[in-house]
Amino acid sequence: MQGIIEDLVNELTRLPGIGRKTAQRLAFFILSMPEGDALSLASAIERVRRNARFCRQCFNISENDLCGICSDASRNTGRICVVEEPSNIIVLERVKLNCLYHVLLGALSPLDGITPDKLKMRELVERVKGGNVQEVIIATNPNTKGELTAQYIKEVLSSMPVKVTRIAYGLPMGSDIEFADEVTLGKALEGRREL
Amino acid sequence: MQGIIEDLVNELTRLPGIGRKTAQRLAFFILSMPEGDALSLASAIERVRRNARFCRQCFNISENDLCGICSDASRNTGRICVVEEPSNIIVLERVKLNCLYHVLLGALSPLDGITPDKLKMRELVERVKGGNVQEVIIATNPNTKGELTAQYIKEVLSSMPVKVTRIAYGLPMGSDIEFADEVTLGKALEGRREL
Repeated sequence: MQGIIEDLVNELTRLPGIGRKTAQRLAFFILSMPEGDALSLASAIERVRRNARFCRQCFNISENDLCGICSDASRNTGRICVVEEPSNIIVLERVKLNCLYHVLLGALSPLDGITPDKLKMRELVERVKGGNVQEVIIATNPNTKGELTAQYIKEVLSSMPVKVTRIAYGLPMGSDIEFADEVTLGKALEGRREL
Repeated sequence: MQGIIEDLVNELTRLPGIGRKTAQRLAFFILSMPEGDALSLASAIERVRRNARFCRQCFNISENDLCGICSDASRNTGRICVVEEPSNIIVLERVKLNCLYHVLLGALSPLDGITPDKLKMRELVERVKGGNVQEVIIATNPNTKGELTAQYIKEVLSSMPVKVTRIAYGLPMGSDIEFADEVTLGKALEGRREL
């Protein structure tokens, strides 16, 4: 009925966590944005959907055959950080680890039929075999599936001359011991370091 | 660095209430949407920015010269509901009032330089003069500016044979008297009706 505004509201409500009221607020905001800004938002959405593909080497999202990280000559190529999803890379990049990545595109979950051949596991082994990789840092999620995946990677790489490490568990910074669950607390004690 | 995904994240963070984390979640969601859905979101944004204009009669947002409401033959054209902004129409339309609207594109605020000539006030008077309008329902906001605007409209229309009404004040449905402010409570008592 409201025509183009209603159309945009309907499109926006498809997005996760965006209800009708938020969608309306966004739609009227978009209407009031400088035209260039609104159009570049529209074209960013279009470009992502039309041009996104997986990096040939690490399976990160990329517009090109090789992603920006893999084609960055200043990176330490001796270190590969293994993650479950491309979105994990954005978070890890904030730490400035200076490494390459390898996205598994999931985590092992045999009960759901997610066996190693469903993940980019073979490709990881090939990379470690082929290159000058000194360390594989496993940054899968700290849950059952992520743990299983980490264990599996450790096993398949055990025969190769590469250090396999796992990111640490412990209390999140800024949190309170009072509210920590006992599993985390147990891991935090287990991983204690000398000061 | 992440290329197209980062571009989209940056574009999304321009929107109100969308921080970096939400933008990332949205960007990866858009990436995973069926291509048609993502492209129709992009084109809805584009259409809003390229084609939106004000309805010639009521100043609602429209793709055409006359908006969908003004060109709807089944509407009661004898009733005009006056609002401050086009977004107010969407909310009011849920009540199924069966009326036309008139958007002032603001509210009076002499201290900020918003005088009647800055609003679509003359156009309202013309509409009332020209047509078969029996009732003007003032639905400006229940705050100082909205009140002032309502009083002004009542005055300029006072010489014309038209009923001028104001939406009621009172306690919002589902609320609790315990938490009502005294101004609202005063208005609710003032507006009490026989049962």
